Amino acid sequence: MDTREDQVSGDAGSWRHYGPVSLPKPLAAALDAFAERGYDGTSIREVAARAGLSVPGLYHHYPSKQALLVSLTTAVMNELLDRSRRALSEAGPTPSERFDAVVESLLRFHMFRRDQAFVASTEMRSMEPESREAYVALRDEQQRMIDEIIEAGVESGEFTTPFPRDAGRAVATMCIGVADWYRPDGMLTPDELVERNLAIARSAVGAL
Amino acid sequence: MDTREDQVSGDAGSWRHYGPVSLPKPLAAALDAFAERGYDGTSIREVAARAGLSVPGLYHHYPSKQALLVSLTTAVMNELLDRSRRALSEAGPTPSERFDAVVESLLRFHMFRRDQAFVASTEMRSMEPESREAYVALRDEQQRMIDEIIEAGVESGEFTTPFPRDAGRAVATMCIGVADWYRPDGMLTPDELVERNLAIARSAVGAL
Repeated sequence: MDTREDQVSGDAGSWRHYGPVSLPKPLAAALDAFAERGYDGTSIREVAARAGLSVPGLYHHYPSKQALLVSLTTAVMNELLDRSRRALSEAGPTPSERFDAVVESLLRFHMFRRDQAFVASTEMRSMEPESREAYVALRDEQQRMIDEIIEAGVESGEFTTPFPRDAGRAVATMCIGVADWYRPDGMLTPDELVERNLAIARSAVGAL
Repeated sequence: MDTREDQVSGDAGSWRHYGPVSLPKPLAAALDAFAERGYDGTSIREVAARAGLSVPGLYHHYPSKQALLVSLTTAVMNELLDRSRRALSEAGPTPSERFDAVVESLLRFHMFRRDQAFVASTEMRSMEPESREAYVALRDEQQRMIDEIIEAGVESGEFTTPFPRDAGRAVATMCIGVADWYRPDGMLTPDELVERNLAIARSAVGAL
């Protein structure tokens, strides 16, 4: 795992701004441990040690390893949704403007919250059925945001794709995939990567 | 993990044909275990039990859990590369035809080899440096196949993307992502999904 501190981008308070991750200590410790060794490969003892807590001290706040996973992935999805909603609230009214806003938000999130995205998607298998359902519901909400904008764009004639749902999934996949390859010390700045990938996402929906 | 048998598609012997996975028993057992519980969460004892072997019997062929992971991910990447090369060898000479062939091959692979793709990408973190390097080299070879075709298409004027490298990564990401959402009992057939996602991939490179 990459342990360099994430770059900061955008003005503080903006949905574009990513400072260091602000999770409660036990969740930050669980995130690091799950990212490095996976959920099944991590012991509660290890999370406690990384958080500088005793095992009973950790259990006091999070009664199980599953509770840590659920709190962590819920926090991740809520941050993503919150940023996307804020991006949309600042965007202009046209589907093209709204598409750009939500895609940019998704791209930035997956640059600056790589480990979170990796753990959430990898450890869906480790979630108990009820928690997995709740997680999937949040993920579906994010996908619906994209799908509704693409449908509106097809309706208005701004987007020409004959396959809006499939394009919506492809665009989301592309944005999520950024977490797999983005490196803070790469050749291009986050803004340049946003510009290029946004252009590709627009092509994928047949934006005019 | 989904345990239903993968659907068969294409004529036997074709790069489009996917029968049941044909891995040596210990690798098939390791695949199932790693997919369900992750590399760190899996014991060599568990792999042996799933393979119907004693632990010494398993060690005779694979001296360590790491050896299982390396053999498995190498087999996965070699199957992918072999199918992509065969798809290209049957394709027409134009960049558009070659693009369609390699994208279709990637899409099908990630429909019918979901667990393999998941384990290979998730457990890169668990590979020792030398093995990871060898794995990444194979993955880069697959990416290069796509990139070279896109560059040729831009050169010939068939593709209009101003960002060929970024588009190449986006297309690969989209194809790989199929493993995350494809379900054999979904609404659309593999052929329909190939058609739609191929159309989206063409848009992403600005195919005329």
